[in-house]
Amino acid sequence: MKVKQEDLDDLGLEEIARGIENMEIRGAALIARAASIAMEKWVNEYQGDDIDDFKEWMEEGKKRLINTRPTAVSLSNAIRYVLNVEYDDLENTKETIRSRCIIFNEKSKTAAKKIAEYGANRIGEGETILTHCNSTLALGAIKYAWDIGKDVSVIATESRPKKQGYITARQLLEWEIPVTLIVDSAVRHTMKEVDQVFVGADTIASNGALINKIGTSQVALCADEARVPLIVCAESYKFSSETIFGKLVELEERDKSEIVDPKEFPGLVIRNPVFDATPPEYIDVIVTEEGIISPYVAYKIIKEMIK
Amino acid sequence: MKVKQEDLDDLGLEEIARGIENMEIRGAALIARAASIAMEKWVNEYQGDDIDDFKEWMEEGKKRLINTRPTAVSLSNAIRYVLNVEYDDLENTKETIRSRCIIFNEKSKTAAKKIAEYGANRIGEGETILTHCNSTLALGAIKYAWDIGKDVSVIATESRPKKQGYITARQLLEWEIPVTLIVDSAVRHTMKEVDQVFVGADTIASNGALINKIGTSQVALCADEARVPLIVCAESYKFSSETIFGKLVELEERDKSEIVDPKEFPGLVIRNPVFDATPPEYIDVIVTEEGIISPYVAYKIIKEMIK
Amino acid sequence: MKVKQEDLDDLGLEEIARGIENMEIRGAALIARAASIAMEKWVNEYQGDDIDDFKEWMEEGKKRLINTRPTAVSLSNAIRYVLNVEYDDLENTKETIRSRCIIFNEKSKTAAKKIAEYGANRIGEGETILTHCNSTLALGAIKYAWDIGKDVSVIATESRPKKQGYITARQLLEWEIPVTLIVDSAVRHTMKEVDQVFVGADTIASNGALINKIGTSQVALCADEARVPLIVCAESYKFSSETIFGKLVELEERDKSEIVDPKEFPGLVIRNPVFDATPPEYIDVIVTEEGIISPYVAYKIIKEMIK
Amino acid sequence: MKVKQEDLDDLGLEEIARGIENMEIRGAALIARAASIAMEKWVNEYQGDDIDDFKEWMEEGKKRLINTRPTAVSLSNAIRYVLNVEYDDLENTKETIRSRCIIFNEKSKTAAKKIAEYGANRIGEGETILTHCNSTLALGAIKYAWDIGKDVSVIATESRPKKQGYITARQLLEWEIPVTLIVDSAVRHTMKEVDQVFVGADTIASNGALINKIGTSQVALCADEARVPLIVCAESYKFSSETIFGKLVELEERDKSEIVDPKEFPGLVIRNPVFDATPPEYIDVIVTEEGIISPYVAYKIIKEMIK
Amino acid sequence: MKVKQEDLDDLGLEEIARGIENMEIRGAALIARAASIAMEKWVNEYQGDDIDDFKEWMEEGKKRLINTRPTAVSLSNAIRYVLNVEYDDLENTKETIRSRCIIFNEKSKTAAKKIAEYGANRIGEGETILTHCNSTLALGAIKYAWDIGKDVSVIATESRPKKQGYITARQLLEWEIPVTLIVDSAVRHTMKEVDQVFVGADTIASNGALINKIGTSQVALCADEARVPLIVCAESYKFSSETIFGKLVELEERDKSEIVDPKEFPGLVIRNPVFDATPPEYIDVIVTEEGIISPYVAYKIIKEMIK
Amino acid sequence: MKVKQEDLDDLGLEEIARGIENMEIRGAALIARAASIAMEKWVNEYQGDDIDDFKEWMEEGKKRLINTRPTAVSLSNAIRYVLNVEYDDLENTKETIRSRCIIFNEKSKTAAKKIAEYGANRIGEGETILTHCNSTLALGAIKYAWDIGKDVSVIATESRPKKQGYITARQLLEWEIPVTLIVDSAVRHTMKEVDQVFVGADTIASNGALINKIGTSQVALCADEARVPLIVCAESYKFSSETIFGKLVELEERDKSEIVDPKEFPGLVIRNPVFDATPPEYIDVIVTEEGIISPYVAYKIIKEMIK
Repeated sequence: MKVKQEDLDDLGLEEIARGIENMEIRGAALIARAASIAMEKWVNEYQGDDIDDFKEWMEEGKKRLINTRPTAVSLSNAIRYVLNVEYDDLENTKETIRSRCIIFNEKSKTAAKKIAEYGANRIGEGETILTHCNSTLALGAIKYAWDIGKDVSVIATESRPKKQGYITARQLLEWEIPVTLIVDSAVRHTMKEVDQVFVGADTIASNGALINKIGTSQVALCADEARVPLIVCAESYKFSSETIFGKLVELEERDKSEIVDPKEFPGLVIRNPVFDATPPEYIDVIVTEEGIISPYVAYKIIKEMIK
Repeated sequence: MKVKQEDLDDLGLEEIARGIENMEIRGAALIARAASIAMEKWVNEYQGDDIDDFKEWMEEGKKRLINTRPTAVSLSNAIRYVLNVEYDDLENTKETIRSRCIIFNEKSKTAAKKIAEYGANRIGEGETILTHCNSTLALGAIKYAWDIGKDVSVIATESRPKKQGYITARQLLEWEIPVTLIVDSAVRHTMKEVDQVFVGADTIASNGALINKIGTSQVALCADEARVPLIVCAESYKFSSETIFGKLVELEERDKSEIVDPKEFPGLVIRNPVFDATPPEYIDVIVTEEGIISPYVAYKIIKEMIK
Repeated sequence: MKVKQEDLDDLGLEEIARGIENMEIRGAALIARAASIAMEKWVNEYQGDDIDDFKEWMEEGKKRLINTRPTAVSLSNAIRYVLNVEYDDLENTKETIRSRCIIFNEKSKTAAKKIAEYGANRIGEGETILTHCNSTLALGAIKYAWDIGKDVSVIATESRPKKQGYITARQLLEWEIPVTLIVDSAVRHTMKEVDQVFVGADTIASNGALINKIGTSQVALCADEARVPLIVCAESYKFSSETIFGKLVELEERDKSEIVDPKEFPGLVIRNPVFDATPPEYIDVIVTEEGIISPYVAYKIIKEMIK
Repeated sequence: MKVKQEDLDDLGLEEIARGIENMEIRGAALIARAASIAMEKWVNEYQGDDIDDFKEWMEEGKKRLINTRPTAVSLSNAIRYVLNVEYDDLENTKETIRSRCIIFNEKSKTAAKKIAEYGANRIGEGETILTHCNSTLALGAIKYAWDIGKDVSVIATESRPKKQGYITARQLLEWEIPVTLIVDSAVRHTMKEVDQVFVGADTIASNGALINKIGTSQVALCADEARVPLIVCAESYKFSSETIFGKLVELEERDKSEIVDPKEFPGLVIRNPVFDATPPEYIDVIVTEEGIISPYVAYKIIKEMIK
Repeated sequence: MKVKQEDLDDLGLEEIARGIENMEIRGAALIARAASIAMEKWVNEYQGDDIDDFKEWMEEGKKRLINTRPTAVSLSNAIRYVLNVEYDDLENTKETIRSRCIIFNEKSKTAAKKIAEYGANRIGEGETILTHCNSTLALGAIKYAWDIGKDVSVIATESRPKKQGYITARQLLEWEIPVTLIVDSAVRHTMKEVDQVFVGADTIASNGALINKIGTSQVALCADEARVPLIVCAESYKFSSETIFGKLVELEERDKSEIVDPKEFPGLVIRNPVFDATPPEYIDVIVTEEGIISPYVAYKIIKEMIK
Repeated sequence: MKVKQEDLDDLGLEEIARGIENMEIRGAALIARAASIAMEKWVNEYQGDDIDDFKEWMEEGKKRLINTRPTAVSLSNAIRYVLNVEYDDLENTKETIRSRCIIFNEKSKTAAKKIAEYGANRIGEGETILTHCNSTLALGAIKYAWDIGKDVSVIATESRPKKQGYITARQLLEWEIPVTLIVDSAVRHTMKEVDQVFVGADTIASNGALINKIGTSQVALCADEARVPLIVCAESYKFSSETIFGKLVELEERDKSEIVDPKEFPGLVIRNPVFDATPPEYIDVIVTEEGIISPYVAYKIIKEMIK
């Protein structure tokens, strides 16, 4: 069962933490908003009257939430944002955090809409867009373009091993947007029919590199070779402030049985990396809710985000 | 049921033609040798005594064979080779064709061995070789290197949609050569661990371009980006003399149900191209039975082959 | 008849608006300054005493000006700058706008001088500079270098169809700076004699792409191939804040008779695009009045400009 | 007045030499055929009976012809071909030269047809072909494709300063093939609508470099950047055997008044290079009457040609 | 004799100025800190009571220090930082400058530690790092990685003519970190064994270009060709604010006898450039104490630094 | 003591073999010619009358010579050339080998002259040529250009560790050709002043790759980046026929004390590779005595050479 945005207001920090842990609250955006709501509730639950004690209280809440998904960029960014305060006068500090929670929540809700609009502006009449895996934001931009009357069509990659391309295809068929499915190996061969590539983002590093579903860097390389623009759609809280301090984004490897049953191939090593890194020189622009930017100014976005 | 080399001697032209048609005789090398044997038999079956009549007879045999698989490069090259004679004195001409048939057959049988040896010479101790799809010649070179004591290991791509990478993996496991399986999208991500890429060839065009299993050009691009050499293994009769005259190699599209059952996705367009074209600038060398060459001298190989 | 800077002080908003409409006020810099003067006058003409009413009044003036040339980046940037105020106390707000108008005007006047100086610093003794079309700022930098004693020479492209290269040549001849004229097709052939390329800008997009006279991207490509630096000269109000929101810069096509009389070629399609887009990876630096920057920080310049 | 193929048979060597000198016989192909006819006549005019004397006679004829246009590659190649004999028995030698003259003449006449056909094979249904300047062979291939029912369209560059693009446009309009004219600076901007580029050749050097109308190398660079194939159409006698020995092809500069009247710009240096050199890495294939080759085997073509 | 950090507190401005002049105070970091201490002392020595007079006094101190090494970026940056104040109330201003001096000094001392830590985060277990010349910061990052248990090894270039690679090798041997020495010409040949390149910086220009020891740009080119990341370690005061205004960093040429005794080669020209410029496209990231950034945001770092 | 060409005629096979072994006969060209003379003598020494016996005799001589320097390409090529005969009639065979020996010797002697001439043709008036290490053939071409009046100048790299650049510099000074010495690290920095790069060759592989002095591939990369042509000078017997069969050219590592005394750096690993491999895409042309070719036709040269 998936928790929806409208259910969040009734939950406290502990309930939200559990929801994130057990994946009932999922998706980078929803997790971020849930965390900001949890922190707001946590402020209200505080019953002491000492500023230092309050600070410890807040750190405790933060720790509880972070531990649910320690590598989720949007989660830690949301908390960093709402706790970016001076602990001086108690009431004052409580009020500031509460209002930052509300602001973050609102900003996050409008971010997807803005990215869809800005991204759609970049799509020309009659264009063919290739997309890899299944990105809500990338599809949002394509949908927006379609809704304002642009005659677009989409090429979706299968995206082995989990074949999220099928989800993408179903979504587009439901919207009645023309869509063609290809295997991942056919990207370069098909590139000459493509006008632009749109993908989402798991994480953006401080030097502008994109961490996203395995194969994204290969699609990006093929696009670059053929002078086809690559557009990344990402809310600003996908930008990892950890990478500023050199922490490399860990590239998860998932269970090998996602690819093939290992028992069928005794002795075979199976590698199942889930993400890869696309260098910034293969990215034309990143569409964020703050506007359309070069990947190279990621550092500036991070600095603004954690202000 | 697959016809083997040793069965061919008992068959006449018509039987061989049918075997090629119904795919009991398959694989570029076997088809080529079968055609040369068929032609030898066809010469022997001729009962007339007129050189012009004999020429027509041979043209008839040629036509029968070509029609079984009109786009098979190795088939037409084999026949072109054995019929590359002057029709003057009847006995003389018959003898020349017969001996060309025998020579072709022998050359073909030794070609794979030579390619394995020459290719293995290029493999260094302890190297990791990436291969795409399932190429007998590429695996032959790897096996040869292993047999002479080089400690190689292999990374095999899955090769969607037909997953011929599984056949590659099984073959290598049987030989006890260490092998790792990855999905096609993980090639670029994995390239930094790769020393060389070895692939086979469906066809080589007169400008050195390689026609091979879909995804080969993408693997080649990733190798080129990372300064990893790409080695193509191909007998000289894979070089298409048709391309000299501008005929483009047709890139077959196969049934879409190989990818996914279309009924599950009403309205979805599915594209299933089986081959793609790798430009010569991404190919370091082609290993042929004549030696190791730059792809750019393909024209010379073709000219020599049809001498 | 062209209106000059010194005539502007005598004109009101409506007169200035008409001047822009009928092209008597032209050139990105002059238009921007005229708009700031118009807005200052417009503040002074307001006779009410209500802050909301005043805001409407200002919006009306803004609308009148913007409508004269809706796609002129410098015009909308000038107005955005002067109206970047809080509408609170009436007198206070009027005063703030007035002073922003004066500041903008001054900044604009000094911008060209600064760009000439900073650009000239980049030019070495004895260098050969190639320039395309006719850019006041690019020529300003060359002139500055010449005036401080650097022995430069210039290669000017013809710049078909309007041949603005002739204007460039005449200007340089008047300054007695050695200049060579070539046709647009000879740029790559001539590049080995060139030390640097200097061009102007129509618009800079938020990802650092340059919109400029048709052919600029081709010159940039030839420079990049030969490791020759490309320097763009542009005031900060050439940076388009619209592009932050994904709005693509429209690339105007002008009358085909500029190329050839269509009547001479019945049936011929003639295309006359006036601008093209140069990707940021072909631009070494942009010289602005704020300093010399990488094109990739365009987003930061825009953010600062509209502060 | 232009001499046509059918007039040549009535002319002797001296008349043909004069025709070449005064440009009545022009175009690389016609000059080559005229030279072979002249040599045949010259053999017939010989009245002596000494083989050494005959050799001197032939050298004299050769010298007369070469001097008419010392840098014309097709002229010297034609003569080199027909005189590639052993001077032993007189009658035998005369016969050999005569027959080489006839063969050369025939080969040349069929070369253009073959190139048109081979080139047309490379053009796909519905493709847009960009061409630069005015090449009979490139247009021949396009026409052939059109005639066999392929729905092609053409983009022609203006080709300053002489605007040969207008001749190209007129020719295509006459054939009713859709054609669009652009200025030379618009090539990169237009490249995304182009499927292939077809150009002719003035000379091909022994390393595969192409000497052709100024701007060709720039078009080639733009095509390469966008992964658009560049196809060169050239008879084998355009391949310069002189370049084998290091002789650089001289790149002619023509009268500056072709660009603009120098009197209008006192002090202006005007440069009017007529040819530029395209490196072989920007050329996909060269279409010759011998077949379609990589530019890198130019050396082999030259060796075969002068056999 | 080299002055150490702990000696600085006992020195006044004039003594520090002399120490910088005679090279007893050397190294970019130490010079910067010495300058901030000198300015703090200089404030304390002021005995007047007039704010304008005080401003002149400070300018005098600044001039004395700058003149010791007019091209040292870290020196002018340190002074620019501490004097970035409003001269209003005298006591207030003195206090502000004093505290900026202390802050700068502290920031500088911690910068090297932070850079070591952030840089070490980028180094993976078992990696081979190539380094050129002798950079304290680059070695600091390698040492940090080693100390936290990462099994790194280093390839050091000789770095002709002064062979600072020997100093690098000795330092690493002392730390017991495995190190291999190669000549400068062997960099490309060795690159396939390298995981990352770490170098220091003399100066960073406003467009992200790196000025560093001769050969750095060549190492960077070889790394880029092989997709090996290049990491630059640089404190923020290595970023040159002068380059914002177009001032090119002067690339010093040192005495030719550093290469070979000119007397041995009468007539020989010997060139000994000490620095070269690496374009930002060959730099993956710059590690600063502010975090890890793309070279393209150098402009932003400079703007922040001089705030 | 070095044996000279004129001394060779007095020596028999065994003496020549010893001369090669003890390095008194050295240099690729001299070794090749010595081998052909040795084989001629060896034929003359044969006293039997049986063709099979004679064949064994010749194999024995071949073996003796090859063993002196088993990896010397010119040695094995010379022997392969002279023994490329049918062993049928004894006297006939002896005569054929003898005459092949004489021909080879003559061809070799004229090869250097031809390469100098062809190479010089490629050098333009006033050009600056960069050369690496010390190549007799490359210097020969420069000298030829100088002697026919071209005003060339040379930049010579030091070529660590053996500093053969000093030999190059001395040779050029002796010829009074202007020469500048730089360290190996300064190549990229200096490249903008270079018109062409000329180098020699140790070996050319069948795919056109160049094996030459360590650093050559780095120089080639820098030249390629800046669009500066790289010219390789090599006699056809530098082309390795072994590489046709996949044998990789072994890249020798020499004594580490050539770089630095290992005792000074206990624990330091020192690597001293002497050669590196330059891929053919960085080579513009190879100047051979057969003419100027693309590296990609190396295979053809090898095939012709061993005819």
